[in-house]
Amino acid sequence: MTSRHPRGFASDNCAGVHPAVLEALVAANAGHVLGYGADEHTRAAEARLAAHFGERARGFLVFGGTAANVLGLRAACRPGQAVICAEGAHLSVDEGGGPEVIAGVKVLTASTEHGKLTPRLVEGQLGRVGDVHAAQPRLVSISQCTEVGTVYTPDEIRALAEHAHAHGMSLHMDGARLSNAAAALGVSLGALTADVGVDIVSFGGTKNGLMGAEAVVFLRGELAVDFEYVRKQSLQLASKMRFLAAQFTAFLTDDLWLRCASRSNAMAARLAGAVAGVPGLRITRPVETNVVFATLPTAASAALRESFAFYMWDQARGEVRWMCAWDTTEADVDEFAHAVRKVLTQAA
Amino acid sequence: MTSRHPRGFASDNCAGVHPAVLEALVAANAGHVLGYGADEHTRAAEARLAAHFGERARGFLVFGGTAANVLGLRAACRPGQAVICAEGAHLSVDEGGGPEVIAGVKVLTASTEHGKLTPRLVEGQLGRVGDVHAAQPRLVSISQCTEVGTVYTPDEIRALAEHAHAHGMSLHMDGARLSNAAAALGVSLGALTADVGVDIVSFGGTKNGLMGAEAVVFLRGELAVDFEYVRKQSLQLASKMRFLAAQFTAFLTDDLWLRCASRSNAMAARLAGAVAGVPGLRITRPVETNVVFATLPTAASAALRESFAFYMWDQARGEVRWMCAWDTTEADVDEFAHAVRKVLTQAA
Amino acid sequence: MTSRHPRGFASDNCAGVHPAVLEALVAANAGHVLGYGADEHTRAAEARLAAHFGERARGFLVFGGTAANVLGLRAACRPGQAVICAEGAHLSVDEGGGPEVIAGVKVLTASTEHGKLTPRLVEGQLGRVGDVHAAQPRLVSISQCTEVGTVYTPDEIRALAEHAHAHGMSLHMDGARLSNAAAALGVSLGALTADVGVDIVSFGGTKNGLMGAEAVVFLRGELAVDFEYVRKQSLQLASKMRFLAAQFTAFLTDDLWLRCASRSNAMAARLAGAVAGVPGLRITRPVETNVVFATLPTAASAALRESFAFYMWDQARGEVRWMCAWDTTEADVDEFAHAVRKVLTQAA
Amino acid sequence: MTSRHPRGFASDNCAGVHPAVLEALVAANAGHVLGYGADEHTRAAEARLAAHFGERARGFLVFGGTAANVLGLRAACRPGQAVICAEGAHLSVDEGGGPEVIAGVKVLTASTEHGKLTPRLVEGQLGRVGDVHAAQPRLVSISQCTEVGTVYTPDEIRALAEHAHAHGMSLHMDGARLSNAAAALGVSLGALTADVGVDIVSFGGTKNGLMGAEAVVFLRGELAVDFEYVRKQSLQLASKMRFLAAQFTAFLTDDLWLRCASRSNAMAARLAGAVAGVPGLRITRPVETNVVFATLPTAASAALRESFAFYMWDQARGEVRWMCAWDTTEADVDEFAHAVRKVLTQAA
Repeated sequence: MTSRHPRGFASDNCAGVHPAVLEALVAANAGHVLGYGADEHTRAAEARLAAHFGERARGFLVFGGTAANVLGLRAACRPGQAVICAEGAHLSVDEGGGPEVIAGVKVLTASTEHGKLTPRLVEGQLGRVGDVHAAQPRLVSISQCTEVGTVYTPDEIRALAEHAHAHGMSLHMDGARLSNAAAALGVSLGALTADVGVDIVSFGGTKNGLMGAEAVVFLRGELAVDFEYVRKQSLQLASKMRFLAAQFTAFLTDDLWLRCASRSNAMAARLAGAVAGVPGLRITRPVETNVVFATLPTAASAALRESFAFYMWDQARGEVRWMCAWDTTEADVDEFAHAVRKVLTQAA
Repeated sequence: MTSRHPRGFASDNCAGVHPAVLEALVAANAGHVLGYGADEHTRAAEARLAAHFGERARGFLVFGGTAANVLGLRAACRPGQAVICAEGAHLSVDEGGGPEVIAGVKVLTASTEHGKLTPRLVEGQLGRVGDVHAAQPRLVSISQCTEVGTVYTPDEIRALAEHAHAHGMSLHMDGARLSNAAAALGVSLGALTADVGVDIVSFGGTKNGLMGAEAVVFLRGELAVDFEYVRKQSLQLASKMRFLAAQFTAFLTDDLWLRCASRSNAMAARLAGAVAGVPGLRITRPVETNVVFATLPTAASAALRESFAFYMWDQARGEVRWMCAWDTTEADVDEFAHAVRKVLTQAA
Repeated sequence: MTSRHPRGFASDNCAGVHPAVLEALVAANAGHVLGYGADEHTRAAEARLAAHFGERARGFLVFGGTAANVLGLRAACRPGQAVICAEGAHLSVDEGGGPEVIAGVKVLTASTEHGKLTPRLVEGQLGRVGDVHAAQPRLVSISQCTEVGTVYTPDEIRALAEHAHAHGMSLHMDGARLSNAAAALGVSLGALTADVGVDIVSFGGTKNGLMGAEAVVFLRGELAVDFEYVRKQSLQLASKMRFLAAQFTAFLTDDLWLRCASRSNAMAARLAGAVAGVPGLRITRPVETNVVFATLPTAASAALRESFAFYMWDQARGEVRWMCAWDTTEADVDEFAHAVRKVLTQAA
Repeated sequence: MTSRHPRGFASDNCAGVHPAVLEALVAANAGHVLGYGADEHTRAAEARLAAHFGERARGFLVFGGTAANVLGLRAACRPGQAVICAEGAHLSVDEGGGPEVIAGVKVLTASTEHGKLTPRLVEGQLGRVGDVHAAQPRLVSISQCTEVGTVYTPDEIRALAEHAHAHGMSLHMDGARLSNAAAALGVSLGALTADVGVDIVSFGGTKNGLMGAEAVVFLRGELAVDFEYVRKQSLQLASKMRFLAAQFTAFLTDDLWLRCASRSNAMAARLAGAVAGVPGLRITRPVETNVVFATLPTAASAALRESFAFYMWDQARGEVRWMCAWDTTEADVDEFAHAVRKVLTQAA
């Protein structure tokens, strides 16, 4: 995909790093500190994570989001076990087989509406519990927000956690965009996780203004036991850990996570508002966070993609994904919405 | 380990990031670019790698050194195969079992003098070739420089490569500190790798002034086929790849890699010179790169460690490791050497 | 499940061992022979496999059917790759996650009618070829006969093979019941495999009269290279191999495989004929091999299961599976069919 | 290796199946029973195992010895963990990398005298406990008898168990030839395992008269939880389990295990006695079970191998291994000893 326009709507990871994060990296560069997390920068980041996710929370920094998901699964599951997630979950379709091959966990998927699991959908995956020929569900994993931008309310998460626990499973959250969900709902990170029974969170930073850092956060201490060895073996122990830590400390200081997420959410809402009602375009998913899904004629989306980067989500249905980032501006949105209107009006 | 002194000799990864690298990161932060390596920054870094390692070389950026080693092995070996390395090789003792469990490769080790394999030592590990009960050697892996700072000459590497190839094996190089070896020998990176038959290199940056970036470089194209999927599944595909790429481009611009390595090498030589002959201290390994190994009385090393960070390498023998970094200064060395002399003189 | 009746319709693996196989085991017990396959019994079995599957075929004996499937996948795929199979394929739902975790292969599934893939269905799983975030299809796997007893014709297999090869994939066949398919179609084993482009076959014996032995048969020699090390590492190298070999030699002597499969197929046909038209019962799948699927009222199937062992296939739909074995007799079938009629007539 | 003589000394797995075992297989062949262990034959075998290994013991049947070892490790260890064993342990050198790659466990080895670990040797492998870069020892594994035929006394095992437990590790026993050790010491199977603190046993049958069956026996119930799923995924759930079960029931009936092992032990003692003192031959290991190790001139061993099958154990030292089986006769031994004497006398 090429694009003449310097800023597009392809993904929130196309944006750069927030200036406050760059400053934190520069500041962390002073002097010598021990590697592999035996430093004060790391202690500070861990303390911030505990402040947001609760006293029992133990956070471990890793390099990327696939790793955060895969390591959470690897820590929680034993050989012969499985995770239940939504059909389009990143875990199932976008991790290159890492959950299965690196974590060693079978992935069971349920068809959902807009990416959200329910206890009933999870129940539908439990038909072979106790059957020795089938991998046994040990985790339920939800994406918050989902891959199509929808959010689970705290009550919905609590219901899933209670259901999972009642069936001897834990609840895992792929929170690559957890900040966007919390911003959308106007609640704290803890209110969507520790307070409602989540056991493990992949807490993302990279898609929301960091350079590259994610955290695996265990909300019940026992799951974290000896996790440092799992992280090391799984290729995720950073040598100069201070530079991951500095990013997270900046992220969790002065609500940077919230400011970034609120901005990208607001831009998606603005975009949805600006294109709603344009003939030939239909918004296909609830716009709840930082992304707009829409169908439009293929010729129109092709024309738009000559100037703006964005992804075709579902070729067959002509559905596109327009994603806003922490640095998307009103001008970016307005310029793009204008182009959308123009292309579709010409097409009509 | 705590240390009152802000700068010690614990490891080259205790140092921060070279200013030129930080500048490159800031510069790379402009605008939107596609993620996962589909950007110009990544193309530029790959071109630099090819410029140094040869036209046929294909370099892939990863987050860390353990990953670089494990992914090289994972790409080259099939189920049922093994790698031969030196007994104290990082691969065998410091990767947390990643080579075995994540790459799926049995590790066979040979006792060496100062960490260096020879064709004869490799030969000693081939006794069970063709025996179905034993994992079959497919790779020989050498560390350049070794974990104790010694270097292989180009001729030594060529001999190992020829021997490996003659036995149907490839030669892998753990080059976490390849820059230091090249600087020590006064040769190019290619002269130690592509020119003498090496097949796969883990080319390290983090220990030599980068923030966190390594490269898996395949020197024969066929080994690189489909490696992008191996990297993804193995949790090493960076979302905002441009920030790994920018580090490597800076590293390979204006000989930054060489300047950094030459400095740390020179500081180790200076340190060795400054403590040579001090009563009670014996330098135990050839000082060829950026590290000095020495034995001294336990009480003396304990006293020193109150003020300066460094590692006890071999408790039983009282052997310590003093490692210099790209930012170690003459003053750092002189202050430390002074302290060493003082402690040992008092002990005497 | 308990059953008062000594012989039921639960599975073809509930039957014992054919007398000719037992005799072969006794005969193979004479004297000392080298272990692990270095014996004449094994050579003989391999020769029989080549006689049936073609000169280029190389067969390797393993303990069980899950192993045969998993090892075929493990031999053919590299890290980051995937297999495409039908939604209800044994590979996907009945191997306990072995394909993913032991073979290291992502499993992609397509919804099918009666368990049969088509080139069009395979095509539907190729949408992410070249997308680095997705495991890349390397194999297509079909079950012949399928898990619901249907068979692929040679032409259907050839079409799948040509399609797979055209897309750089190989065709794998889960032939746990390949004998039943060949018997049903009246063709040779080779006509369903080597002659129509299949690359790897799991050729089953245990479900068709053997005590416990399966073969992984590579139909193109290159796939078999170094497979002995894969088999060993994957826990499937038999110490006293002669006893697996003797089973297979007996199986492939005097058409024992065909006689056993023809019998179980005929018994299923007889059963289907005997219960067709019984009120309240509907046969739900084409009866092509040794199994009958039917829906009937839950109370009726519960009553029947008090006396006869068989499996509830789909609880929600009230669908049951009645499977015949190599030793199922006309009397067995008639007695059971009588009971079915009686229960359903009473229910009506 | 070829041998004109029909019975040699290559391995105890070159022998066939004891007649009582064949009879048990024939007897078990009656009628239909459910597969995968849901049958009375399996219940009976499990009860026998519990009778020998203690009430808390839970035994699981598997196909082979490599599998028994690998599955025990896989059940007991988590990612990032290691097992400590003797340098020449089967686990380390003869399982084709299965412990590392299939069980996911790093193998740490200690040099031993005649294959026996001691608490002090184990201690020597604990130097990196708590070091995040090193896989963490979780198991100690001993071979009873060892690969060179020596035995641990109950007190030696108890000391190893207490040491392991004191360091948070469990004690695993590779008991491929446990029967031979028990026979040699004149004690029960439990006296060498459950009574002295062993946690997991691979209890072998194949090398001692069975056709092919081994058991993983967990001596503390908690280790066995959900092991059936591990066994299934690891390709070791037998379809027609009754035939593994029948072997073990026969093995543990009327002391068959003991009679077979006593015979092979006695034959080794007879052989050692018959060749002791022959000029040019030196017995190199204590002859405690069913094997004799000796050095003799290479020409002599080559001449002997033309007529009798046996293995060269250590080419460099000219050490050979002569192993007796459950069916080795006095005549076999005497004939071979005569040949040895003759060859060496001629050589002298």
